[in-house]
Amino acid sequence: MQSKTTHCKIVDCTIRDGGLVNNWDFSVEFVQHLYNSLNEAGVDYMEIGYKNSPKLLKGADSAGPWRFLDDDFLRKVIPNKGQTKLSALVDIGRVDENDILPRSESMIDLIRVACYIQDVDKALELVQIFHDRGYETTINIMALSNVLENQLVEAFNLINESVVDFVYIVDSYGSLKPTDMSYLVDKFQEHLPNKRLGVHAHNNLQLAFANTLLAAGKGVELLDSSVYGMGRAAGNCNTELLVTELQNTKYNVRPVLDMIEKHMIPLRDKVEWGYIIPYMITGILDEHPRSAMALRSSDQKDQFVDFYDQLTTPEMASK
Amino acid sequence: MQSKTTHCKIVDCTIRDGGLVNNWDFSVEFVQHLYNSLNEAGVDYMEIGYKNSPKLLKGADSAGPWRFLDDDFLRKVIPNKGQTKLSALVDIGRVDENDILPRSESMIDLIRVACYIQDVDKALELVQIFHDRGYETTINIMALSNVLENQLVEAFNLINESVVDFVYIVDSYGSLKPTDMSYLVDKFQEHLPNKRLGVHAHNNLQLAFANTLLAAGKGVELLDSSVYGMGRAAGNCNTELLVTELQNTKYNVRPVLDMIEKHMIPLRDKVEWGYIIPYMITGILDEHPRSAMALRSSDQKDQFVDFYDQLTTPEMASK
Repeated sequence: MQSKTTHCKIVDCTIRDGGLVNNWDFSVEFVQHLYNSLNEAGVDYMEIGYKNSPKLLKGADSAGPWRFLDDDFLRKVIPNKGQTKLSALVDIGRVDENDILPRSESMIDLIRVACYIQDVDKALELVQIFHDRGYETTINIMALSNVLENQLVEAFNLINESVVDFVYIVDSYGSLKPTDMSYLVDKFQEHLPNKRLGVHAHNNLQLAFANTLLAAGKGVELLDSSVYGMGRAAGNCNTELLVTELQNTKYNVRPVLDMIEKHMIPLRDKVEWGYIIPYMITGILDEHPRSAMALRSSDQKDQFVDFYDQLTTPEMASK
Repeated sequence: MQSKTTHCKIVDCTIRDGGLVNNWDFSVEFVQHLYNSLNEAGVDYMEIGYKNSPKLLKGADSAGPWRFLDDDFLRKVIPNKGQTKLSALVDIGRVDENDILPRSESMIDLIRVACYIQDVDKALELVQIFHDRGYETTINIMALSNVLENQLVEAFNLINESVVDFVYIVDSYGSLKPTDMSYLVDKFQEHLPNKRLGVHAHNNLQLAFANTLLAAGKGVELLDSSVYGMGRAAGNCNTELLVTELQNTKYNVRPVLDMIEKHMIPLRDKVEWGYIIPYMITGILDEHPRSAMALRSSDQKDQFVDFYDQLTTPEMASK
């Protein structure tokens, strides 16, 4: 087992993925404290939100500003940018390319395009546009655990012909075991010999950190995480664990502990994420956590056996 | 990476290791519900407590009956024993061998002897006694992350000459990374070619399940876990994850979900274990969680940065 991880960079997704938990209701002070903590900790990228367009999304009014990043606003939030670069995620069909300034006029360094396997072609069109405007780019293929090999190989062919810098292995349902992650990294490396790789893990089976470490040890470069694991449903790989365990003397856990103490513990008292049994159940069943999120919002939130029975009764199962 | 796990057996430690959290204050009804759940789930062993002697231990009066198991009492608790065998742990210097009935007269099937590396000789004397009385036996060498290789090789020589059935790799401080676990399993297998192995992991770095799966994939047979991870400090590998992910059709997660819903969720509201930052800190520093447990019992329980500074300031560090 290879264990060198000096090639890795951390992409903290606390605001972007964590916003899926609290509808991006983070104060400016919270985001500023996070940016300063990550910068002091040596974290390479902070994904500060989505760069989707409110015109293209229902229910946009209620969300916080991190869902629809605006460059003028960002300049006020982070008046003194440090070493930590900024990243934004866009979704196919929800981004207006006219909103994207040239990188030289923007606070953002990296734009990541999330898509399902059937939209890889559309994602790569967006990647080309962002690349031409000067950004670093990634394509994040979601729900890989539900993708057939032939579809994946077709996508690889398109990706090989594209300008995208990084290709992500995304464990959307938190269902990948280490043997699965190992298989996927091998597969991506075999088919994408000239592309650099990233990994985005979810913690439904308490494997997000282990799978991320495993991918890192095999040569994957961009590692997604969030502080105290904040992210949709079971959450993500924990930033505080990555900065501690990656072999890189520039990382420092202390500012991340400060962020957890000051902001994440009080926040976790108000909204929930992490290893919670309904999310573990959707993880073992390899499906989207939306049914579990609905359960957790109901007054049956701790009725695990009924929930399990519903999802595993043939006529009720989603697939 | 090997992934076959059909050779594995699960040893649920909820009562024994979880008792370290609540001073073994489990009701008889709780323990009966757990036994029935584990039996229905196909779990192989339930470690129902310690078989230490109250005469040899300070502060024994306040602890629940699971700290000093009594065979007459056990017969009442579990009048209808199923397929799930019973296990008890003993500590060097705290067990009176006169308390141990022949196995034919006891409810207990497996006796495990926990020791530090310097007491392996004493542990093996006890193992011989229990073996002669008909029990299955294990030796659990604690705090392996702090043991020098030469001491370990000396211990292996003693173990090779002994009658012990299983030798445990114990990650007492929850500090082992997958590469460390892989190294230790290789080392144990190389030096103990005729012994069977077990693994006991702690979850300080969210690696207990991953490390247990990794050990299982390399041929380790006995896998310790507890329901909902209940165990000292950061807790253990989760039984519900093992019964789901091990390749064995006899396992069934549903009764474990029922136990979590009925008993573990209400209990977790009263006492705490799991991924809690001070335990993560002792994990990354590879030391005993006692300082973190003291912090969590104080009114500074969420002052993570001060705690980290204390443990990492040279004159304050424990080693």
